[in-house]
Amino acid sequence: MPGVDPAELTAQLVRCASVTPANEGALEILNDLLSEAGFDCAWADRGGIRNLFARWGNKGNTRSFGFNGHTDVVPIGNPVDWSMPPFGAEIKDGIMFGRGTTDMKSGVAAFAAAAVDFVKDTPPDGSIILTITGDEEGDALDGTTALLEYMENNGERMDVCLVGEPTCPETMGEMMKIGRRGSMNARVTVTGVQGHSAYPHRANNPLNAMVRLMDRLASHELDQGTDHFDASTLAIVTVDTGNPATNVIPASCTAGLNIRFNDLHSGASLTTWLEQQNALIRDEFGVEIEMSVKISGESFITPPGPLSDMIGKAVEAETGVKPVLSTSGGTSDARFVKHHCPVVEFGLVGQSMHKVDEHVKVDHIHQLKAIYGRILRDYFA
Amino acid sequence: MPGVDPAELTAQLVRCASVTPANEGALEILNDLLSEAGFDCAWADRGGIRNLFARWGNKGNTRSFGFNGHTDVVPIGNPVDWSMPPFGAEIKDGIMFGRGTTDMKSGVAAFAAAAVDFVKDTPPDGSIILTITGDEEGDALDGTTALLEYMENNGERMDVCLVGEPTCPETMGEMMKIGRRGSMNARVTVTGVQGHSAYPHRANNPLNAMVRLMDRLASHELDQGTDHFDASTLAIVTVDTGNPATNVIPASCTAGLNIRFNDLHSGASLTTWLEQQNALIRDEFGVEIEMSVKISGESFITPPGPLSDMIGKAVEAETGVKPVLSTSGGTSDARFVKHHCPVVEFGLVGQSMHKVDEHVKVDHIHQLKAIYGRILRDYFA
Repeated sequence: MPGVDPAELTAQLVRCASVTPANEGALEILNDLLSEAGFDCAWADRGGIRNLFARWGNKGNTRSFGFNGHTDVVPIGNPVDWSMPPFGAEIKDGIMFGRGTTDMKSGVAAFAAAAVDFVKDTPPDGSIILTITGDEEGDALDGTTALLEYMENNGERMDVCLVGEPTCPETMGEMMKIGRRGSMNARVTVTGVQGHSAYPHRANNPLNAMVRLMDRLASHELDQGTDHFDASTLAIVTVDTGNPATNVIPASCTAGLNIRFNDLHSGASLTTWLEQQNALIRDEFGVEIEMSVKISGESFITPPGPLSDMIGKAVEAETGVKPVLSTSGGTSDARFVKHHCPVVEFGLVGQSMHKVDEHVKVDHIHQLKAIYGRILRDYFA
Repeated sequence: MPGVDPAELTAQLVRCASVTPANEGALEILNDLLSEAGFDCAWADRGGIRNLFARWGNKGNTRSFGFNGHTDVVPIGNPVDWSMPPFGAEIKDGIMFGRGTTDMKSGVAAFAAAAVDFVKDTPPDGSIILTITGDEEGDALDGTTALLEYMENNGERMDVCLVGEPTCPETMGEMMKIGRRGSMNARVTVTGVQGHSAYPHRANNPLNAMVRLMDRLASHELDQGTDHFDASTLAIVTVDTGNPATNVIPASCTAGLNIRFNDLHSGASLTTWLEQQNALIRDEFGVEIEMSVKISGESFITPPGPLSDMIGKAVEAETGVKPVLSTSGGTSDARFVKHHCPVVEFGLVGQSMHKVDEHVKVDHIHQLKAIYGRILRDYFA
């Protein structure tokens, strides 16, 4: 059973220069492939973004396995920095080069190929749903959320979902992701009273309040980690004043914070904590403190269970490596899918993602298809 | 005895646009006046700066009273901001306007006029020495220090010295200055290890060390003041990072400090203290800390005694106000003179100095000449 060649499919997708929000025919290639294999396909476009929904099997089937991924890619940067054509998908010594070869046209190709072969060879008693977006690398406002909205509106449902993002730091098979820490940014402005450096008692130096506040925040242990999460972290990323005059006490100063938080916290609870700390400093120093907060994402987790067990076994069977369950790393669309159903991420080695000369071992694409195929067989067994 | 009109002399000096380092004939006016009155005059020029030394009486006399002052002025800023010509010395309602009318061509005119009248009316048994520089408002590298070097090289000596800078905050006669706090600036750079905000443990955030260091320095009580000095102060004037990326922990950050210190400290002792504090933070946080220090001036004092008593009595006799003995305010050439002999500063109300529409009450110039004349009579009595 040769079936669909996932490396060839990856190459076809890479040759579409689908830098967010462009699509350049990438999703149409998948639409054609899946439609021909008997999938019901629909466009869930929104805000100028193309999104593909595809289901094999009847709507409302008892068992429904989902895949999620994206065909959009990050910009290539300066083309002259690339040693191979960034949209060429050229193969050299068994390695395919090009933007999206790891993140994540290969992942999409592997699960589409696995799904097509699977329904052809052993039509399951259930449904397979593929949600593939063109807006993951951008603002992600009209991508997977639009697909999930489409499903909600049309009575579509996944029981579980596998996101095909690259998840392995160095070795194929070594890591899957069962959740993610949350992330938030805060910008703090402290305003005091300007004055002459020689007479600090006539001024109110906002920097005195700022350094005390920042020291307290940076010294505070948010937690010691939980079963599946590292300890939450707070990083002061900048403190700025911009005062060139040594004889002047400045009127105000600003600081920026980034907090990565586990399931013991939420963006709201941390905002409240920051506001309390600001209030203490405000009272101690008699300064004004303003804060703006941007919550990039809440923490989430699909606790270890049947889904992660099944994926772990399939990965081990195909690679000989038992994947660890991690909640590390940057954001992905799993943060949206988790509102719909249990979700786990597993995919390729991600080392070259977003970099110049992004590349993938062709063997790994075939191996990933084999893993996804095994997961489908096990799920519907 | 009409004698020399100090207001007319002030006006002549103001009409010379002697913005540092320019002289524009100002010191020549004084040279002519003093030479004609029997003073031995000499130029102590250095580095392109004109400096006038003048002595009445023989070199090596038992008693020698000194005056010190400057004829250079700060820039006028934007001329259209002035409501009167900045080098016009025009008088309106008894007030003379122009750059240098308070700081300190009037002071120089008052002591030159007082000295000329005094030696003419009652030739003293001793010497009167005038040291007048054209480099006080600038770097002050080739001004009073050049005059003192000239005196050293030529066996000239003052037993006491009165600097004619404006010293009164609001009311004529209310303050003399017997010393000054020292001032120093430090620039601190903390370098850690750059990294991703999501993984602070793989980085070493220099801001954590910086805010702890700054909080400690700003919280530390340097002292509680001494008999004649306010408490020393430390002001953080700026903390800067310039990191626009919320997902990046910066490699380094900088801070600027200004310390005003009394006679319990020196620039060297405070530098040592700062270095010790840096070393503690370096050990605690494993960061690199570099510091550059610029000592603008050491603290100094002429303790209350015969000189300040005599000046205080003269001021009170002429104005009805008993001057307080202060060590407040910015720098002056008294910091150099103090290496030569006891030094006290007394002069006009300084409110408009360095400002647009700088001005002086003409009456105050006459009053200042009377005070200086009375001091000379008392000193040589």
